[in-house]
Amino acid sequence: MNSPRDDSKSPSGSAATAPAPALTPAMVQQVIAPHLPGLLGVEIVETTPDRVVGRLRVRPELCTVGRILHGGGIMAFADTLGAVGTFMNMPPGGTTTTIESSTKFLAAAPEGTVLTGESVPLHKGRTTMVWQTSIRREDGRLCAVVSQTQLVMEARSAPKA
Amino acid sequence: MNSPRDDSKSPSGSAATAPAPALTPAMVQQVIAPHLPGLLGVEIVETTPDRVVGRLRVRPELCTVGRILHGGGIMAFADTLGAVGTFMNMPPGGTTTTIESSTKFLAAAPEGTVLTGESVPLHKGRTTMVWQTSIRREDGRLCAVVSQTQLVMEARSAPKA
Amino acid sequence: MNSPRDDSKSPSGSAATAPAPALTPAMVQQVIAPHLPGLLGVEIVETTPDRVVGRLRVRPELCTVGRILHGGGIMAFADTLGAVGTFMNMPPGGTTTTIESSTKFLAAAPEGTVLTGESVPLHKGRTTMVWQTSIRREDGRLCAVVSQTQLVMEARSAPKA
Amino acid sequence: MNSPRDDSKSPSGSAATAPAPALTPAMVQQVIAPHLPGLLGVEIVETTPDRVVGRLRVRPELCTVGRILHGGGIMAFADTLGAVGTFMNMPPGGTTTTIESSTKFLAAAPEGTVLTGESVPLHKGRTTMVWQTSIRREDGRLCAVVSQTQLVMEARSAPKA
Repeated sequence: MNSPRDDSKSPSGSAATAPAPALTPAMVQQVIAPHLPGLLGVEIVETTPDRVVGRLRVRPELCTVGRILHGGGIMAFADTLGAVGTFMNMPPGGTTTTIESSTKFLAAAPEGTVLTGESVPLHKGRTTMVWQTSIRREDGRLCAVVSQTQLVMEARSAPKA
Repeated sequence: MNSPRDDSKSPSGSAATAPAPALTPAMVQQVIAPHLPGLLGVEIVETTPDRVVGRLRVRPELCTVGRILHGGGIMAFADTLGAVGTFMNMPPGGTTTTIESSTKFLAAAPEGTVLTGESVPLHKGRTTMVWQTSIRREDGRLCAVVSQTQLVMEARSAPKA
Repeated sequence: MNSPRDDSKSPSGSAATAPAPALTPAMVQQVIAPHLPGLLGVEIVETTPDRVVGRLRVRPELCTVGRILHGGGIMAFADTLGAVGTFMNMPPGGTTTTIESSTKFLAAAPEGTVLTGESVPLHKGRTTMVWQTSIRREDGRLCAVVSQTQLVMEARSAPKA
Repeated sequence: MNSPRDDSKSPSGSAATAPAPALTPAMVQQVIAPHLPGLLGVEIVETTPDRVVGRLRVRPELCTVGRILHGGGIMAFADTLGAVGTFMNMPPGGTTTTIESSTKFLAAAPEGTVLTGESVPLHKGRTTMVWQTSIRREDGRLCAVVSQTQLVMEARSAPKA
């Protein structure tokens, strides 16, 4: 019982260029530092409308009893990157929220290692965006794949008199 | 509370070559014809241990009221390809079952069109495999991405006396 | 990077009563009969704004080689019920589409048995609804749990002159 | 292409009673304190084989820029409870790892509030268990539903000479 759904932005859509001047990794880092990504130690490395990259050091306090990164740490790392990616594509004044996320855990990330997460869009629509994040170990092994749906909320129009 | 999990097969593992002689698309087609994939009209195009491709014509009876492919049709198409992919990598006598699947629906597939689904492995382990299927329209637009986890069950050893 | 999201309808919201006169199971059955749910044999048993129930007979052509219901059949059955549930709560003229779905397969449904699916809402918002469907065998065993997010699209306003 | 899958434990299975003496909430709390759940502030309230309950205070450093709990915090909270639940049902010496998780975010959890998470099993099998966690606000509103699949790994038999 689906209905047609054709809300993709044209490749030349203005949305992708809207955040002008573009958000640099340092600017994003500053924004997230006081929040959960900062507590975990997420480092933002690259922020473009079609690719967001971050790093995370697997510190002992992020681990499980088995001294590997806790699944929650992996999901929080990915959620951060996918949300930043969505934000890089939003109209001025817009906001976004994750409405769902699904994760496959593929390999353990041992304590002391550094992970790299790369998030790319599967869909950029007016209403929703879908970003998929691949998290890899230093040896290139894929630890997890997370795909999340972001709701895009445009800036509210001024209240009518 | 995770525990280490390092069950990947080596790239040169014998598992990938186990089904000898290799299953051709025609052989797989014959096996699935009497079952749900046959009812839907799934056509198997390519069967290798690292890529399975299929096609599906969006016939009226596979659609929703809105004359686009029903979400269930998309998921059944993808599930078929991911299961075939797993089977292409299994030890002789082994079986597999889908234990979970998650789907993002990205664009409608209109009645009368032909979809192509491509399934690739994200993980090939001894206990589980994860396959991700991308379903595209003839115009190249991505309709859906489905990722599923398959449990791998080895052939049961002979009962002991 | 979430933002507040408080789009739930009040329990007494008019939306639930909007489709007047209410859609009976027979009316829904008639609508879906020419489409995928009809091809599969989904029978709609109960249609209320807070619970939708259906049945599905596991015919041989819905099965896998192993003579149990194909995973795609389970997902299509559930998708149908969740979409009907959303539709029961929509404003007049509105439409809905599944934007994502995730399934856990818990037990096999053998050929020849009859499954019952019950779908209930986890969330009824203005923008999205989330419905969860439990599919059980005649012996009460839970075969699968499917939760899906539906996008709610209001009726388009009349084109301006 | 599924195959039968009937690995449920009988209700009277010894597994549920295996961890003797039973793990109390205080014991679990002590185990997880040095790890990610401790960093987040997860408090374990109830630990039984069929229900695990925890609490989480939404401290500022767990939030997003919008001063609501970060999605990653919600997922980490739930992952902890589901893993504890699995552990409560495991044979002595066994371990578990989350192989996949899917989350629906339903309502924001504002800074300063206290959330309660309740995790219950959807499936207890010999190979996998599926736990579903509902996270609620103090006003009873459902914030998120997380369902995760745990792989169950039995204790390794002693190496043969």
